[in-house]
Amino acid sequence: MPEAKKELEEIGEKVLKDLEKGENPFLDIPIRSLSNVEFDEKTGMLRLKEEKPGKRFLFHTGHAKKFMQTMLVSAFCKELLDQGLHTSLRDLYYALKTTLPNSSENTFNEQSESDPIVIDLEVALKILREQLHLSADVRGRVVGNLTIRDRGDSINLARLGSGGWAVPSNVEDIEFRNVDADFILVVEKNAAFERLNEDKFWQDPDHKCIIVTTQGQAARGARRLIQRLATEKNLPVHVFTDADPYGWYIYFVIKYGSISLAHVSDRLGTPNAKFLGLSVSDIEKFNLQKYTIKAEDVDIKRAQEMLDYEWIKKRPAWQEELNLMIKKKIKAELEALSGRGLKYMTQEYLPKKLKEKEHLLD
Amino acid sequence: MPEAKKELEEIGEKVLKDLEKGENPFLDIPIRSLSNVEFDEKTGMLRLKEEKPGKRFLFHTGHAKKFMQTMLVSAFCKELLDQGLHTSLRDLYYALKTTLPNSSENTFNEQSESDPIVIDLEVALKILREQLHLSADVRGRVVGNLTIRDRGDSINLARLGSGGWAVPSNVEDIEFRNVDADFILVVEKNAAFERLNEDKFWQDPDHKCIIVTTQGQAARGARRLIQRLATEKNLPVHVFTDADPYGWYIYFVIKYGSISLAHVSDRLGTPNAKFLGLSVSDIEKFNLQKYTIKAEDVDIKRAQEMLDYEWIKKRPAWQEELNLMIKKKIKAELEALSGRGLKYMTQEYLPKKLKEKEHLLD
Repeated sequence: MPEAKKELEEIGEKVLKDLEKGENPFLDIPIRSLSNVEFDEKTGMLRLKEEKPGKRFLFHTGHAKKFMQTMLVSAFCKELLDQGLHTSLRDLYYALKTTLPNSSENTFNEQSESDPIVIDLEVALKILREQLHLSADVRGRVVGNLTIRDRGDSINLARLGSGGWAVPSNVEDIEFRNVDADFILVVEKNAAFERLNEDKFWQDPDHKCIIVTTQGQAARGARRLIQRLATEKNLPVHVFTDADPYGWYIYFVIKYGSISLAHVSDRLGTPNAKFLGLSVSDIEKFNLQKYTIKAEDVDIKRAQEMLDYEWIKKRPAWQEELNLMIKKKIKAELEALSGRGLKYMTQEYLPKKLKEKEHLLD
Repeated sequence: MPEAKKELEEIGEKVLKDLEKGENPFLDIPIRSLSNVEFDEKTGMLRLKEEKPGKRFLFHTGHAKKFMQTMLVSAFCKELLDQGLHTSLRDLYYALKTTLPNSSENTFNEQSESDPIVIDLEVALKILREQLHLSADVRGRVVGNLTIRDRGDSINLARLGSGGWAVPSNVEDIEFRNVDADFILVVEKNAAFERLNEDKFWQDPDHKCIIVTTQGQAARGARRLIQRLATEKNLPVHVFTDADPYGWYIYFVIKYGSISLAHVSDRLGTPNAKFLGLSVSDIEKFNLQKYTIKAEDVDIKRAQEMLDYEWIKKRPAWQEELNLMIKKKIKAELEALSGRGLKYMTQEYLPKKLKEKEHLLD
């Protein structure tokens, strides 16, 4: 029986047992506020502090509705697993919106009521939403020297033309076969991904790799795919983003996990990921001065916030980078490299960066 | 020689010839304002009115800079075609930002200066941006009974697991092989696409098809792919969106082309596309009343605008739908179908809609 199904059944059995014993049934739901997030030195990722979880009781005027909602969501997910179906958070909301017979009262009035219950379950069961067969946002594409098996299909990611494989929301059941790559290159932007794919950058014996574009902030499917590939195939991960706080945060989320999903860092984070570029110091090193953009106030503010994060405070190289950006008030996009020529990224910048590993920011 | 390259060379030759004859070189650039857009009854798509194109002169204080910029962009695209490279609008901007030797004057200060020049070229040459090797935004996934050939790879879209093929920004050179589908199903949302793909909906002999998700408003690559498949393989197109003005506009853009890209409707529009659902009348017909959402003011306003579009005015069925939505002040999402059960969409709604073709809105 899959882990998730067993966990869901255990919830039901525990509640039944409590009722039979005449006790007030409750669930342990850890608190997920910001103040409960910390950096775990041992794993190198964000996590929830493991202090006293909150209890949610059935017989409690303040808890009863949420308790009932939690039961409904659990039963719905159990049904998904039994039937082997996957669906989205929005579908779950609609399916559970009106479950009370002979009543016009909704069990969920808004999706903003059902979404947190799903996260409660994730946290309480230490399970991924995807393992409950609930799909998250979907974004991301992948190509490279790798064959995967998925739903009975064998897919060679080196033979997908200009498009690549669309990363689905759930990558739990994918098997990796015939991996012939030395590292994973994670690229923020699709335009750079298309250029790299056009040059079949991943095929060159000097830098055989798997290329993933996150198309902005990485969706859960892409993060989990990167993590699984990195750990199961023991591959280094190099992250390649714009030189701005938004791009850098994409890197930090891939590496450490995100604040809002700190409870699943161990399933989504990739602590061995390294930052390849663009950094503010790259601008001088690679003569990109003419192609920079003035940083906006919002960029400066974001950089200052990031300087204060516990897990960035301990990284002198990042403190330096962020302070340099704040001082110079400039940022640069991946496309700045095109200012030096259309093949500069694939033939100069990346090979140099990949060779001189000491230039990678940790 | 590819069409685009020939056209670009002709621009250069014309300018040279004008100069040799001692004449003031100019380019014909059609005007692209809203007032110059009309519905073409014959093709069933939007187009630019073909009245007097604007002339852009080299020796003219008001035109000289734009003329020079147009020449730079043309030369850059010619270079892309010569080298067989593709790049993005943003890359083009960076590559051409500073081209004047011994001057700190930029040839383009902002991307908002170079983007319109690319559209000027598209309009003037009657050519797609993609044929100039410039990538547009990228979004969209496709699966189904179809094999394509792209960059030397043969890709069977029936064997791509849960992910599907990521639609690239440029689909001009893709060849279609072994098409075994009766129609194309275009789905607005990825969640519905994943459900359909999970059930291998496209494989069922009752409705063999190719499924494309646009993931919101269709990107140019997806629109062109739908058009090419529909016309080259003579396949009907059924569009499946939320029951709201945003969803319906996705349908109208696929069918008629968009106002802002009216000059390339013949390359991006698919006039034989039909609207499958969701319609406001579906809500009653399929008992979805419990799963609707209150329409916001912005929805009502958008519906009223759409009622007035020349090409919607002539569609009584759409006038009825839009007025019904305005009257009832409700909308519904694809996910509303999950309210009737998780397999309701794939096993009830879609088969019924596809069978009773008269229910399709034109």
